[in-house]
Amino acid sequence: MANKSKLILSESRVCVALDNIREKSLRILMKAGCDKEYANQIIDHLIDSDLSGVESHGVVRTLQYLDEYQQGYLLPNVVPKVTKDSLTKINIDGQGGLGIPALNVATDEGIAAAKLNGICAIAIRNTGHTGRLGAFAEKAANQGCLFILCGGGARDKWRMVAPYGGTKALLPTNPWCLGIPGGLKGPVILDCATSKIAGGWIKAARLANAELPKDMIIDKNGLPTQNPNDFFSGGAILPKGEALGYGLAIIGELICDAMLGSAKVESNTLILMIDTTSYRNPDIFKKAAEEILSELRDCPPAKGFDNVEIPGEREKKNREISKTILLPEKIWAAIQKSSI
Amino acid sequence: MANKSKLILSESRVCVALDNIREKSLRILMKAGCDKEYANQIIDHLIDSDLSGVESHGVVRTLQYLDEYQQGYLLPNVVPKVTKDSLTKINIDGQGGLGIPALNVATDEGIAAAKLNGICAIAIRNTGHTGRLGAFAEKAANQGCLFILCGGGARDKWRMVAPYGGTKALLPTNPWCLGIPGGLKGPVILDCATSKIAGGWIKAARLANAELPKDMIIDKNGLPTQNPNDFFSGGAILPKGEALGYGLAIIGELICDAMLGSAKVESNTLILMIDTTSYRNPDIFKKAAEEILSELRDCPPAKGFDNVEIPGEREKKNREISKTILLPEKIWAAIQKSSI
Repeated sequence: MANKSKLILSESRVCVALDNIREKSLRILMKAGCDKEYANQIIDHLIDSDLSGVESHGVVRTLQYLDEYQQGYLLPNVVPKVTKDSLTKINIDGQGGLGIPALNVATDEGIAAAKLNGICAIAIRNTGHTGRLGAFAEKAANQGCLFILCGGGARDKWRMVAPYGGTKALLPTNPWCLGIPGGLKGPVILDCATSKIAGGWIKAARLANAELPKDMIIDKNGLPTQNPNDFFSGGAILPKGEALGYGLAIIGELICDAMLGSAKVESNTLILMIDTTSYRNPDIFKKAAEEILSELRDCPPAKGFDNVEIPGEREKKNREISKTILLPEKIWAAIQKSSI
Repeated sequence: MANKSKLILSESRVCVALDNIREKSLRILMKAGCDKEYANQIIDHLIDSDLSGVESHGVVRTLQYLDEYQQGYLLPNVVPKVTKDSLTKINIDGQGGLGIPALNVATDEGIAAAKLNGICAIAIRNTGHTGRLGAFAEKAANQGCLFILCGGGARDKWRMVAPYGGTKALLPTNPWCLGIPGGLKGPVILDCATSKIAGGWIKAARLANAELPKDMIIDKNGLPTQNPNDFFSGGAILPKGEALGYGLAIIGELICDAMLGSAKVESNTLILMIDTTSYRNPDIFKKAAEEILSELRDCPPAKGFDNVEIPGEREKKNREISKTILLPEKIWAAIQKSSI
């Protein structure tokens, strides 16, 4: 797919070796109170996001996490607590820490339970930012599991998205992330917020004094605008895919708030997993999947697109070829400064 | 929401009493070889769709089913066969019959298993048309269950939708249907195909010699068109919500084909259910849900919309006020003719 970037900001970038960025990130998180093992778990996740091409969820986040630890919003070094209602219903209490370690535990517990019992549900409560959700879906799918995740329950803190047909920011960006084993090129991963654009892009556009693309946000009167400042003065992001994204957002919010209880810290998360190998031999699955996916890859592209993509394959390909991280100069300077 | 109809066809309509339409539909399905009990199960579902305002899945379908029975595409009076891999993994073999009775059994079995074990997966294979999926989601949600369904596995028969960024019809309309208990006005139901428009609307536009709305279909060269004839000569429907609907469609197809095996008859279906009451007391759930939903209902509407809707509430309200069915004259004439 082309036309992927919502906004092109002309920024100078600097190529940073992995060891270097790891060392600086480690210093930042240790400054925030994390011990080395805990910090490395988080950094592994962030570097993997950068290498996947998902910069918004990469090492730039260490700056946000440092701030959140220093403000007492997040607790460092907490061990996610696992309790089980049954063999198929697992609860993870994030204990007020960052969501990434809690989601790591949830994914491992979920894969094990799905392998033993075919299906399971994992409820994760009381966490901060959950990182790049696609990473957890990839891990589960690489183990043969169908993975369905939704997040929400924090609309009081994060009212950003208007309902379909409405004019006010009422919902958070309620993410959904689905993963399933694929064909010859790895799992298929759909990882997206239910908003048309991420809040981070709007902030970036404001900083760069740039216009947003059309039909992404509305102003405080519900009218279309491309001025990022209008979002911050009572505007809203439109739902992705109109009624589709809006419907998924409501259901995500009902699951993560009404069903799982009010979110402490930042949000709640529900994951469902099914062991696909309990339905079909993995080799037969892969062959059938490859038939579907190769048809799609071979489809002649539409105007403005280089090719038809399978969601998840670009991130995997990026990881296979990336050996360094290309960071915006400003971000790298901020990371270096914060690591001192 | 306003702006809901993709196409307004000016048609004369006739108001038909329920007893009358039931009698005619029963004759049609008995002519097709269904016994009275089996036929009534189907007719109940179709009348409920009409009363819900979902005419496309209403009694008009008796004409399609009659044809499918007469061609030997569907078998009448088959009893869906239930087998269980475990307490939480249920399989339904539709035995080559219509999907509606199979989905009825699947929903009942699923609710029972979710109530006993908290969570379950129901795989339904070997069925014809599965009816209005929202009806099954409503039933489960009314029993306190979260309901997640996807369908697919029949792309060889139903290549209708282009991948995002592609120019050829490769995927079927892979439906997703989610339901969850709501607040004071009943469950929240998201019931949609992953295509921007239903195939039925394109047929109707062609019959009426009408143009389709913009950005719904492309022609054989992948170019935008509003001429319904272009769809039937090598064109395609665009995916709903661009990459979002496309991603859901691929995952639906992988689940229902690669995981559940090649679809016999028309399609395969997977349903996941979770008993929400095993997480939270239903009264507390309802109160929390109503808080979310009332905020959305109270949102000032955007231009062109009468109000912000909660998906599923319109269908419920329609059922509460509808006592007759308002059928297009041509459809009613065809039903009367076929019932003789």
